[in-house]
Amino acid sequence: MSTEKNKKNSKRTTAKGKVNKSSSSKKTYKKSSNAKYDFKPKNKKDYKNKEQVKVQKPPIKIAFLGGLNEIGKNLTVFECNDDIILLDCGMAFPDGDMLGVDLVIPDFSYIEQNKDRVKGIVITHAHEDHIGGLPYLLAKVNVPIYGTRLTVGLIENKLREHSLDRVSLHVVDAGSSVKLGCFDVELIHVNHSIPDAVGVAIHSPAGTLVHTGDFKIDCTPMSGGMINLSRFAQLGEEGVLALMADSTNASRSGYTATEQTVADSFDTLFRRAYNKRIIIATFASNISRVQQIINCAKKYDRNVAFSGRSMVNYMNVAKELGYLDVPDNILIDIDKLRDYPMEKIVLVTTGSQGEPMSALSRMAYSDHRKVSVGAGDFIIISANPIPGNERTVGNVVDELLKRGCEVVHESMYEVHVSGHACQEELKILQALVKPKYFIPVHGEQKHLRKHMDIALSLGMKRENIFIGDIGKVVELTDNYMKEVAPVQAGKVFVDGLGVGDVGSIVLRDRKHLGQDGLIIIVASLDVYDGHVISGPDIVSRGFVYVRESENLLEEVKQRALDILEDCATRNIHEWGVIKNKIKDDVAKLILQRTRRSPMILPILMEV
Amino acid sequence: MSTEKNKKNSKRTTAKGKVNKSSSSKKTYKKSSNAKYDFKPKNKKDYKNKEQVKVQKPPIKIAFLGGLNEIGKNLTVFECNDDIILLDCGMAFPDGDMLGVDLVIPDFSYIEQNKDRVKGIVITHAHEDHIGGLPYLLAKVNVPIYGTRLTVGLIENKLREHSLDRVSLHVVDAGSSVKLGCFDVELIHVNHSIPDAVGVAIHSPAGTLVHTGDFKIDCTPMSGGMINLSRFAQLGEEGVLALMADSTNASRSGYTATEQTVADSFDTLFRRAYNKRIIIATFASNISRVQQIINCAKKYDRNVAFSGRSMVNYMNVAKELGYLDVPDNILIDIDKLRDYPMEKIVLVTTGSQGEPMSALSRMAYSDHRKVSVGAGDFIIISANPIPGNERTVGNVVDELLKRGCEVVHESMYEVHVSGHACQEELKILQALVKPKYFIPVHGEQKHLRKHMDIALSLGMKRENIFIGDIGKVVELTDNYMKEVAPVQAGKVFVDGLGVGDVGSIVLRDRKHLGQDGLIIIVASLDVYDGHVISGPDIVSRGFVYVRESENLLEEVKQRALDILEDCATRNIHEWGVIKNKIKDDVAKLILQRTRRSPMILPILMEV
Repeated sequence: MSTEKNKKNSKRTTAKGKVNKSSSSKKTYKKSSNAKYDFKPKNKKDYKNKEQVKVQKPPIKIAFLGGLNEIGKNLTVFECNDDIILLDCGMAFPDGDMLGVDLVIPDFSYIEQNKDRVKGIVITHAHEDHIGGLPYLLAKVNVPIYGTRLTVGLIENKLREHSLDRVSLHVVDAGSSVKLGCFDVELIHVNHSIPDAVGVAIHSPAGTLVHTGDFKIDCTPMSGGMINLSRFAQLGEEGVLALMADSTNASRSGYTATEQTVADSFDTLFRRAYNKRIIIATFASNISRVQQIINCAKKYDRNVAFSGRSMVNYMNVAKELGYLDVPDNILIDIDKLRDYPMEKIVLVTTGSQGEPMSALSRMAYSDHRKVSVGAGDFIIISANPIPGNERTVGNVVDELLKRGCEVVHESMYEVHVSGHACQEELKILQALVKPKYFIPVHGEQKHLRKHMDIALSLGMKRENIFIGDIGKVVELTDNYMKEVAPVQAGKVFVDGLGVGDVGSIVLRDRKHLGQDGLIIIVASLDVYDGHVISGPDIVSRGFVYVRESENLLEEVKQRALDILEDCATRNIHEWGVIKNKIKDDVAKLILQRTRRSPMILPILMEV
Repeated sequence: MSTEKNKKNSKRTTAKGKVNKSSSSKKTYKKSSNAKYDFKPKNKKDYKNKEQVKVQKPPIKIAFLGGLNEIGKNLTVFECNDDIILLDCGMAFPDGDMLGVDLVIPDFSYIEQNKDRVKGIVITHAHEDHIGGLPYLLAKVNVPIYGTRLTVGLIENKLREHSLDRVSLHVVDAGSSVKLGCFDVELIHVNHSIPDAVGVAIHSPAGTLVHTGDFKIDCTPMSGGMINLSRFAQLGEEGVLALMADSTNASRSGYTATEQTVADSFDTLFRRAYNKRIIIATFASNISRVQQIINCAKKYDRNVAFSGRSMVNYMNVAKELGYLDVPDNILIDIDKLRDYPMEKIVLVTTGSQGEPMSALSRMAYSDHRKVSVGAGDFIIISANPIPGNERTVGNVVDELLKRGCEVVHESMYEVHVSGHACQEELKILQALVKPKYFIPVHGEQKHLRKHMDIALSLGMKRENIFIGDIGKVVELTDNYMKEVAPVQAGKVFVDGLGVGDVGSIVLRDRKHLGQDGLIIIVASLDVYDGHVISGPDIVSRGFVYVRESENLLEEVKQRALDILEDCATRNIHEWGVIKNKIKDDVAKLILQRTRRSPMILPILMEV
């Protein structure tokens, strides 16, 4: 049942022998997400028989390599008997103190050590915090990847950029399942801010685990239909050992509004901006949002252009796979903007987080090669700032306003809804699934704790809830849930082409250099008697203007010279000792004069 | 009428000849803020006569040296005839890209150039963004300072820390005015998040300007009484040339809740935490908030300790001047915490913004010498994160939760209210003052624009509204408002003891060093033929682990050696040329190998 596209594509195969009810045609996708559920684990009967004869079920172990106490780099390991499967493999963006780091990935050591047992990796959806680590994992371990059609399409696109082409990619539709060792992993359609997102039911010899993936309950989504709540309910009736659920919005009361509210806002704003160019910044992955923009553009007879590399990439894949419905002749190239009147254009762009190199930032700071903005522009930021980005987003808004643009942002209108479930939705899901054990996932400590409180409020016992952390491992059976020995886990920094070669010492140096700058003291010493032959020369960067500090640096030079000559005279020739003396004395001098602590680097040469 | 305290204190004088109705006794303060207003400008009649004979009034100029397109370092210059007065003199906290900068102050050049014309500086309230620049201004220009009693008390405390003791400080009560050259500056009581805050009416030969300072309308404040709306109304009736008003919350609809709502929340939370130690983080300057905590502690029979240097400082001044009402025996020293049962303690601390060195952060990361926190602690963060601090506050909350503390933060309960007016309050004030011209101040571009929209919605004409910027100057008369030639203005960075010696080049270097680290290439060359005598040696910091990059650095060394020898052979002895060649070649090599761009510093020595 694979489509022609799949047949043409050697990299993406539907693993027929393994995948139940697999399908990747658009029609079937739509059908399966709405269809009544009819999946039955093949070996369910076997389990029952075993239960009746009181055969002890094996335990299942869950190891967390990412996604707990952080929002990012999700990666969970499931082990039962001798088989291992992985769920998601994401990246995280660096914190402010990870200077120069491009991105953060999980420590894959545990997977590498057990690579022969890994049967496959299942991806819930194609957001970076769920797929961004894949290229780095696949560079070390070759594991087959399973996901829905759009998910696999976007992964394929990503792997191509990393020149990884011998990867085994498999399309599994929501409503179907795939057998991986002793696991049967069933994909269940959920709503989220990217189409084709799924949760999973992991049927194992130990019992059934449900993992929601990232989800919300949207009864009127733009496409793909409502979350398959019936199936979650059915699983609940059948008996679920443990539920792992998305905690991102656990601190927010009530419900997340439906994506349709954004449609209404867009309509109002398009009418208000009738005589202006409209520029909308949103997440490139939010294909439903872009669909809404296209629908609105069509209604108001505007053409649509995309700006920003990731926006163009995502839209190409989404269009190709049929997830973006684009009327004829509506799309125009960004180079052709000048051929159209301003009021006939909608420009959809990246940069909703104020990222310095993004298209919207470049427009705001007059640094965009193709678009310059001004009083003729009506700009909508259709996203909320992710915590930590408030400042940069605010700055971009201010720059746009200064250029005379009209700007709609944050909560001014309902131009954005979250992709994650709020408290009432979390309660509904938990009430339907009725798990024996509960493990909140996908959140910082505050979110995990709040999610625990929600579970407690529904009557779950505290001892049946596990709040994990990266590296922690929990073991489950019908009879117990307990924490067992941890596994290696942590943050690996990617900087340029380097993976893991930037560690805490390098970061500490970067921080020191960035905060205080440095002073280099270099001198050539006589190889025989240690006396100074040349120098000491003083070079400083990031400390103060040399002009402003001439006297001070002259003083540093004299102090260093005194120490060097003193050491030579006293026959002290251990360079470590001499360097430390220079370092300490100069540091003291500079602290006293300036109350600053630049890095001080003495360099000695023997001639 | 000066109090004994003032008499004893040689530095703080009440300038009797100048200040009308001045008083600094606690009693009179309370009276004057509630009393009916009875101020009459002495020379009002003169103006009227002048008007009648159609004598042209002189224009008034307003120059903005800070506080526009930013929240911070407020400093406004008013000029009429030949006289200059200043309003506020604040500092700002550095943005994330101002690496190593401790604080930011306005460029004082314009004031220095015109220091003989400056008659005085009036301070609206004692927040850092209104007083933090004073020590740096006073180091250059000696100007008398005028403010209310608490404001002057806190300034005095600050100046003492900077060893500035020959400053002329004058207490002026709200309801009184001070004559400064041709200006009569009248202080008007307003509500804000620090007691004794005022707005001002600046009566000048050009007419009356009203500046709100930072304000909100609180009909039931903790102390000091409600904002003197009647006086604003009266001024409106008399005729106001221009209104300058606080824009901080111009984007927020409705009203700011009264401080009393916080009292109710505290009461609830104190009851809930009956068996725990309570730790509350708030702004040290929010004396009313601390008063509430003390009241609640008394009610629930707890002792109160202060933690954090600025908290202790503020409370000492507030207590001394009678702005903090502390029952006997309720305060305990933080060193004595162990002598009291946990559930009998309230610890009031700094760190509500997650500042890394603050008391609360130290507790969260187990780095506080006197307090260690755990499951016995109930922690309330009674402040909202200032934009840009969300991440650090969130991290502190997570760490506290991990230690088992219960944490109440952000909007979970009403444990904080803003100190600034929301849209409805801004409308009320504007409607009362009925200015001819309107100048929104104290805000980023988005706030200023929004405040303009509010003015427009009240019927003000666009051409009567001026949105300024730092350095801009606006000139006003009854007949016109126009922008005139700008003055020097900008950001001056304070780093350690250095003021202004860190500029854009130093910051660019710091950023480069912080992001990418550096590679130093040092060699000694023969003074006669330029051949290498020693080295090149390679030293790197903040680049990668040396272990990981041995081969690469060896390659760098060889490349540098080749270039040096090649130059010597080809008789190229200009060091600039040689260094640039090394820099370019090595940069290219490293970019190719690592896709990184560390700073490359060749250092050559002649021996």
